[in-house]
Amino acid sequence: MLKVPEHQVAGRQAIDGKLGPLIDNSGHFYKPLQDDDERGTGELTFYHSFSSNTRIPHHIRRFFPVFYGTQLLKASDGSGLRPHLVLQDITSDHLNPSILDIKIGSRTWYIEASNDYIQNCFHRDKTTTTVSLGFRICGLQIYNESAFWKPERKLVQSFTADDVRSVLRMFVSSNVGPEPDFCFADSVYGGCDGILERLMELKTWFEDQTMYHFCSCSVLLLFDKESFLKGKTPFAEVKLIDFAHVVDGNGVIDHNFLGGLCSFIKFVSQVLADSKGSTMED
Amino acid sequence: MLKVPEHQVAGRQAIDGKLGPLIDNSGHFYKPLQDDDERGTGELTFYHSFSSNTRIPHHIRRFFPVFYGTQLLKASDGSGLRPHLVLQDITSDHLNPSILDIKIGSRTWYIEASNDYIQNCFHRDKTTTTVSLGFRICGLQIYNESAFWKPERKLVQSFTADDVRSVLRMFVSSNVGPEPDFCFADSVYGGCDGILERLMELKTWFEDQTMYHFCSCSVLLLFDKESFLKGKTPFAEVKLIDFAHVVDGNGVIDHNFLGGLCSFIKFVSQVLADSKGSTMED
Repeated sequence: MLKVPEHQVAGRQAIDGKLGPLIDNSGHFYKPLQDDDERGTGELTFYHSFSSNTRIPHHIRRFFPVFYGTQLLKASDGSGLRPHLVLQDITSDHLNPSILDIKIGSRTWYIEASNDYIQNCFHRDKTTTTVSLGFRICGLQIYNESAFWKPERKLVQSFTADDVRSVLRMFVSSNVGPEPDFCFADSVYGGCDGILERLMELKTWFEDQTMYHFCSCSVLLLFDKESFLKGKTPFAEVKLIDFAHVVDGNGVIDHNFLGGLCSFIKFVSQVLADSKGSTMED
Repeated sequence: MLKVPEHQVAGRQAIDGKLGPLIDNSGHFYKPLQDDDERGTGELTFYHSFSSNTRIPHHIRRFFPVFYGTQLLKASDGSGLRPHLVLQDITSDHLNPSILDIKIGSRTWYIEASNDYIQNCFHRDKTTTTVSLGFRICGLQIYNESAFWKPERKLVQSFTADDVRSVLRMFVSSNVGPEPDFCFADSVYGGCDGILERLMELKTWFEDQTMYHFCSCSVLLLFDKESFLKGKTPFAEVKLIDFAHVVDGNGVIDHNFLGGLCSFIKFVSQVLADSKGSTMED
């Protein structure tokens, strides 16, 4: 009944006897807690705090996967029963979703972490677009012409600013190759219910909230081209995922997440503007 | 005719035979170029680029000291003639200005810098409020009850978030000590011509501009209590200073500066809100 998520684009995967998340057919995503590791505990702590936090506005709560508690399940690595977070499977309503997983922030470490952890993150941040752009694409799949483009982790990690722009163009195009047609840009990025508007809502909240610092957290963009063509909604979604490294905000805004989010918003805005330019030239 | 600036609160000082900036009585600030050092050259390069850049809006140009070119002058360290940047002396119209020098950004290094430079900055950023708050106070003087409070560099470097809040309260109070009266908060931080409004103007520009990344640059806040009490304007000013480490934006917004600026704005907003609370309780 439980299976490996088909549309997971980043993070540890439950394949080759390794520990990773599982899904069922009822829209649940089971993420293993790593009991001897601060990661799992950190994410559970966050979900407990967040679900009971009455200061989270309703329109912000929508950005987070629904949390259903924890459950003991047979772990994917064959190590026996292990507690799992039970979360909403964001992709379950979509057959062939295009997905971008964007880790936000120009710094993925936090002061409270161990020195080894900081040094590892610091190196990765400098050698990806994290420091230069304030975010990095961690994984992606783009559905086009009946197939997924799902580049390997190494290729994704080597992305430059120009590669990021190309990916954001391909995400809203109906063709593959060097000349994207920007076919869906207006509907997906633009408009009063588009991705840019959602990102601006998040930005407004991050300018104010001082409760949590979302270190190493991702914005996940989903676009379901088939739903869009059939007039089915929602065809595009914006979610926040991965809260293993959320720390107390201590009365300070999450300037690291906010800065990176603003940079990402600028990239999306520019692709939307380019798409208008390209349509006008046609 | 040239002398050591009386109101310099941070940076290298022209005392004890050391190289530092000088001022004259006509409102000029002379900053020595360090020819064997990328710092000086970097700042001159920036001023040349910025002064001739037609894409800088007029209301943004006001935040920058006027640049009058360079001039050969006898250096303050007795080493003979040396080229100096000739800049506007921001403090020249003020007798006893209170000044805060706030280095903006949660990272003061940049990818292109040498490894030693990066490591030095990285250490300093972690051990001050730079990483945690997205900015750090580099220096200050607060004029109250006929005297300046001008803490030593070591004390300023050890400031915590709470110390930053105290400083922001003292800056707009007419008394010293643990119970600030917030006397000038509304006029200096609030209002349509106050410091918060100026900072918001800067923020709007930083959300859009992708020309420059202002690494290790400071926002300087100036408040002249005597001018204010005499009804003289401007009694408060916001300037950007120190451009030795400005690098090309390469089409990306300065998310590091923007994030830190937003965090600083939140601190100032909270002090203004506290001041209103404290007045209502009276």
